[in-house]
Amino acid sequence: MTVKKKFIAAIGGSDPSTEEEQMAEEVGRELAKRDAVLVCGGLGGVMEAACRGAQSEGGLTIGILPGESRRGANPYVQIPIVTGMGYARNVVVVKSAQAVIAIGGSYGTLSEISHALQNSIPVIGLNTWSLSKNGQQDNSIILAQNPVEAVEQALSLATNQ
Amino acid sequence: MTVKKKFIAAIGGSDPSTEEEQMAEEVGRELAKRDAVLVCGGLGGVMEAACRGAQSEGGLTIGILPGESRRGANPYVQIPIVTGMGYARNVVVVKSAQAVIAIGGSYGTLSEISHALQNSIPVIGLNTWSLSKNGQQDNSIILAQNPVEAVEQALSLATNQ
Amino acid sequence: MTVKKKFIAAIGGSDPSTEEEQMAEEVGRELAKRDAVLVCGGLGGVMEAACRGAQSEGGLTIGILPGESRRGANPYVQIPIVTGMGYARNVVVVKSAQAVIAIGGSYGTLSEISHALQNSIPVIGLNTWSLSKNGQQDNSIILAQNPVEAVEQALSLATNQ
Amino acid sequence: MTVKKKFIAAIGGSDPSTEEEQMAEEVGRELAKRDAVLVCGGLGGVMEAACRGAQSEGGLTIGILPGESRRGANPYVQIPIVTGMGYARNVVVVKSAQAVIAIGGSYGTLSEISHALQNSIPVIGLNTWSLSKNGQQDNSIILAQNPVEAVEQALSLATNQ
Repeated sequence: MTVKKKFIAAIGGSDPSTEEEQMAEEVGRELAKRDAVLVCGGLGGVMEAACRGAQSEGGLTIGILPGESRRGANPYVQIPIVTGMGYARNVVVVKSAQAVIAIGGSYGTLSEISHALQNSIPVIGLNTWSLSKNGQQDNSIILAQNPVEAVEQALSLATNQ
Repeated sequence: MTVKKKFIAAIGGSDPSTEEEQMAEEVGRELAKRDAVLVCGGLGGVMEAACRGAQSEGGLTIGILPGESRRGANPYVQIPIVTGMGYARNVVVVKSAQAVIAIGGSYGTLSEISHALQNSIPVIGLNTWSLSKNGQQDNSIILAQNPVEAVEQALSLATNQ
Repeated sequence: MTVKKKFIAAIGGSDPSTEEEQMAEEVGRELAKRDAVLVCGGLGGVMEAACRGAQSEGGLTIGILPGESRRGANPYVQIPIVTGMGYARNVVVVKSAQAVIAIGGSYGTLSEISHALQNSIPVIGLNTWSLSKNGQQDNSIILAQNPVEAVEQALSLATNQ
Repeated sequence: MTVKKKFIAAIGGSDPSTEEEQMAEEVGRELAKRDAVLVCGGLGGVMEAACRGAQSEGGLTIGILPGESRRGANPYVQIPIVTGMGYARNVVVVKSAQAVIAIGGSYGTLSEISHALQNSIPVIGLNTWSLSKNGQQDNSIILAQNPVEAVEQALSLATNQ
């Protein structure tokens, strides 16, 4: 592989709905078909489904783990990064990506969305959070209709930072 | 001082509106009057106004800094904690508090709100973000009408974790 | 209190010898008598003894904790900072201090010594590690004969960073 | 690639001697020939030489960066992990490896050696630090005579954590 590949994060919870899990797997497959590297938090749920999808198409998968051991990674993580930093690792997940696809998710996912927006890393949303402040809608999360659209948006918006 | 005091974080941006800055200063004063310790990110804007308010009433102020030097703290921080970890320090700000008061704020503040909710630390909001997911309002941020109400809510809901 | 006080870290293991524990307690007392703030990792052993000593003389004690809860702090910590970052918190302990006193200690203490030296923060040693590289002694750790001497060295060398 | 590969860190300073740089490059080549993945801090000096060696033999290189941008990586890093956490990233470098080879190095390298020993990750040394405590030599750093021996030791001792 070469450093020219794009690195895209798939973020979402450990306890997704069936639909979200299917979307995550398709996101992983579509990223791998387009030769992108998948970055994720390395655990179960959306993270595992995305890795499984990517691996099924021969893609490379990176899992940035909160715990103390590589054995905490889901079985489809090929590159386990062991931080031992708990959820402070969420910052590393988004900073290591050039764009982020958020699928469903709870407050951990929302923290990753926030850190990405704070760092001007594009966020594409599938069934995820929407934000407003003082009654005004914030449209920074780019809504996608389906995984293919999310992946194409992510790749076209990927920053070079 | 004794460890029995309550630790409350005031979070918000470095570039607040005049109204937000006044609210932050009042939050600081009201926390200090009730003998609570103020935790914040240690920089300017909402953080500085809250520290100024707390110090004016003899309160203790802790600033958890993203940078490499205590000299980055605003002049009202009495206890500078130097992390050198950039915005990963946001996690430390919320975890060190037993409740969080969010005043205005941008994506950095939203990341702190998210980390607090992820850790079951109560969040009280003044002119801040509101959240929804899949079209459903999320009411985890407790809305306060004014700084006194925010401080009283924060102190009554402060966790013991 | 005011920001003019000096912040000095006492570092060392959770399982010290009786002599090291006595030295740590005396370091805490002597720092407090000289109006310095004690920074430590917040747990047991050397950290607890230093906090106990400081508190017995009315000093202020800060514990920068690796875990997820303030309840992990020893009973003499007055300001618990909750990082949730495991031993990455060692970096925060040393960066928050203007000088470091190392008492005994194992590899965790050695990592704190190293981070301090990397950041040009003075390190005073009592019964602690000594270093050499390629057969050449490295004299960066300043040896003290006893706790009073260690405290006086730390206060006179404290950086202003 | 598969998750069965061994992950070995090469650590050392940004300003090595010519001999250390040659050793680092050979360590990189020998790791790649044995199908191991190289983990490093992603910057120049020993890190860059090790990555260059690994890449010359078709090996995979991971750089765990202290800064805010993937552009800070040396040109031979294939997988840049962007932490934005400064030298707290040293912890992530060693935890992501199953054994560590230390080549020369200054206090940053010593902090990595310490974190590795604290986590029971084997450390093999080439021209690097040696440690003693209270006048007693600590032999935890395994001395190697040359890069080939260091790589073979690292692979045979690699933990499974």
